Amino acid sequence: MAASGNPCGACKFLRRKCTDDCIFAPHFCSQDSSACFAAIHKVFGASNVSKLLQNMPFADRSEAVVTVAYEAQARLRDPVYGCVAQIFALQQQVAILQGQVMQAKALLARSMVTQQTFGQPYHGFADHPSILGYTDTTQQT
Amino acid sequence: MAASGNPCGACKFLRRKCTDDCIFAPHFCSQDSSACFAAIHKVFGASNVSKLLQNMPFADRSEAVVTVAYEAQARLRDPVYGCVAQIFALQQQVAILQGQVMQAKALLARSMVTQQTFGQPYHGFADHPSILGYTDTTQQT
Repeated sequence: MAASGNPCGACKFLRRKCTDDCIFAPHFCSQDSSACFAAIHKVFGASNVSKLLQNMPFADRSEAVVTVAYEAQARLRDPVYGCVAQIFALQQQVAILQGQVMQAKALLARSMVTQQTFGQPYHGFADHPSILGYTDTTQQT
Repeated sequence: MAASGNPCGACKFLRRKCTDDCIFAPHFCSQDSSACFAAIHKVFGASNVSKLLQNMPFADRSEAVVTVAYEAQARLRDPVYGCVAQIFALQQQVAILQGQVMQAKALLARSMVTQQTFGQPYHGFADHPSILGYTDTTQQT
């Protein structure tokens, strides 16, 4: 039962009595939680989510409800790929960025060689060893 | 019904008769598909996945089964975060890589200024305008 004495969003959606030990009540107490629960129920089923929550410590349940709701809403928006579409997109973005970092490393290394060839002491990379993947040993005494 | 005449992996798991129009059969015909379907059934429920597949064109169903199986297996491995854990990890990786690219851009820009100050013609960036986000105009005639 929600703190207000009204049924929680899940029980309101399921049109059932909300008891004091309702597993959904602590996580579906806001006004718009019925709509969120509707998505969860449509994709996962109330019974499956209830079992999932029962099998984890209370402290983890809020996070689990958030991630289950996220997956459910993604699946309703994109029935074929759900939130896996976001995983694909992020993996692609990581690959592009890794390519840019590699390209930048090569350019920086080339630039460092050019400057050393022309006898200019270069101190820029010592502050950013993570970019080149190693520490600029020219700074060591 | 699977092409072999045996029940499909889904019907085998559900211990039901596999009919010619079984919605799962085209996607659960391999030997190990029963274990995959068990994960899907535990997380989403066979009925919910059946409805999901019925509401999309046949051509999309194989991809949908793959992504639903992916989400189900991730949720069994990590009941609290499921595959959302991977989204968080990838978002973090993107943020780190974006930081590295920004840092590299700043270093490359500084390096370009240094080399121009010392009167060295620098041709390196012209081949890689994407790194600096602009074309090296010093190459224009």
